Amino acid sequence: MRNKNAPIGVFDSGVGGLTVVREIMRQIPNEKIVYFGDTARVPYGSKSKETVTRYSRQIVRFLQTQEVKAIVVACNTASAYALDEIEKETELPMIGVVKPGARVAAQTTANGKIGVIATEGTVNSHIYSRYIREIKPDANVVGKACPLFVPLVEEGLLQDPVTDEIAKRYLTELIDIGIDTLILGCTHYPLLRSTVGKIMGEGVRLVNPAYETARELKELLGKADLLNEEEPKLGDNKYRFYVSDGAEKFKRFANSIIKYGILSAKIINIEEY
Amino acid sequence: MRNKNAPIGVFDSGVGGLTVVREIMRQIPNEKIVYFGDTARVPYGSKSKETVTRYSRQIVRFLQTQEVKAIVVACNTASAYALDEIEKETELPMIGVVKPGARVAAQTTANGKIGVIATEGTVNSHIYSRYIREIKPDANVVGKACPLFVPLVEEGLLQDPVTDEIAKRYLTELIDIGIDTLILGCTHYPLLRSTVGKIMGEGVRLVNPAYETARELKELLGKADLLNEEEPKLGDNKYRFYVSDGAEKFKRFANSIIKYGILSAKIINIEEY
Repeated sequence: MRNKNAPIGVFDSGVGGLTVVREIMRQIPNEKIVYFGDTARVPYGSKSKETVTRYSRQIVRFLQTQEVKAIVVACNTASAYALDEIEKETELPMIGVVKPGARVAAQTTANGKIGVIATEGTVNSHIYSRYIREIKPDANVVGKACPLFVPLVEEGLLQDPVTDEIAKRYLTELIDIGIDTLILGCTHYPLLRSTVGKIMGEGVRLVNPAYETARELKELLGKADLLNEEEPKLGDNKYRFYVSDGAEKFKRFANSIIKYGILSAKIINIEEY
Repeated sequence: MRNKNAPIGVFDSGVGGLTVVREIMRQIPNEKIVYFGDTARVPYGSKSKETVTRYSRQIVRFLQTQEVKAIVVACNTASAYALDEIEKETELPMIGVVKPGARVAAQTTANGKIGVIATEGTVNSHIYSRYIREIKPDANVVGKACPLFVPLVEEGLLQDPVTDEIAKRYLTELIDIGIDTLILGCTHYPLLRSTVGKIMGEGVRLVNPAYETARELKELLGKADLLNEEEPKLGDNKYRFYVSDGAEKFKRFANSIIKYGILSAKIINIEEY
């Protein structure tokens, strides 16, 4: 019998998954969260399936020591490469960011042309295409890797002529194809939403998987009778943050994304798990 | 008694160290080389001293299994953070890229104003400044972190208006200070030499530590009577490349830097060392 008051475990390769945490905080504010960001080994987007799976497995082991009641894989690359395998290895309910994003994109598109911007790993896995076609078999899904978006976000250039120029180069081929729906398939990308939206124009609906993931998580916990019914008490350590490196730097970036006020992040040696 | 015919071990966080390998190949063409690129955990430039030291120690252990006769730390961040500690732990001659670069900069400058462009880690360590002042105590050394340079190089934008614009932003403060010498303090940066040179102008001497490191390595091996006297035979596996992830991608990038023709790179699990 799982404990309703237990925290939800959320992990990502670094800070990007905090856009998912932000949505969970908004949509199910009673839930406790344990977050792990693999800041020592970030980024995952350019790594192989084998490596991302090995890293994800270590993180799941760590989250289990925190007695979480469910796990959110808040990283597109880990959802694409590792989720299928690691969810077999535990009894815990587990949810990634890809399926919820794919589902809403399939339901949204009118002309069947869907773009996915993501890391190299997520694009090469063709996972969005696979899930979208399960719902909408005739959909035309075009992926585009945008390797400079993460470093640009981490350098703080959210609204900047350089970011505009790079975004134009990446997005031109999706505009030419005439997509009407674009999935922001990397957890950093919602932070570039206004830049991407400006270039794509009003005719293109932007899908943020973070939002959809929080919605599906709420549903999943509800069905499993695992929603926390009472608000955690003060001093209950509602939100806990762990990283594999650079706690201070993480805290600074995290506080720019989440308005909650993150007071501390603890470093753990993830290779030991 | 060490073996003159043994290979030189060279390591880096990823592909950048190949600019050092290229110089070693040119300056001491008889030497065998075993290269390790930590492509699974790249980049090092934004990681902490503790993490970079732990990773470097694992790599030294791996290179020792390859029976190398000397080790070159072909990564500025690892040279800055880890070299002092790891060189105490082995008998092998070990050389980093920072000291040779610092030495030639100190000898070159006329007005005593030296700029260092590098990763966040290298800049924060103030190591170039420390070494330069040992030689030239009144030198004024100004470091500038350029976090977007590595992703821009890895995206292939070596000569591009976006790279020009970013470089201008990073370099303006060094131009304003009036430096006459600029150290390219990250092994990726020599690939941006023409962009940086154009912006700094002809009055500023660019120092490439890769070149100086190969020169000092030759001297060090000569003094220790460890230079290989005969050219390795065909089929002798003169150059061997190991990585922690993404062998194919490494090979593609490596072949764009080194004209030698890298036929294969082998993946090892570095966390086991």
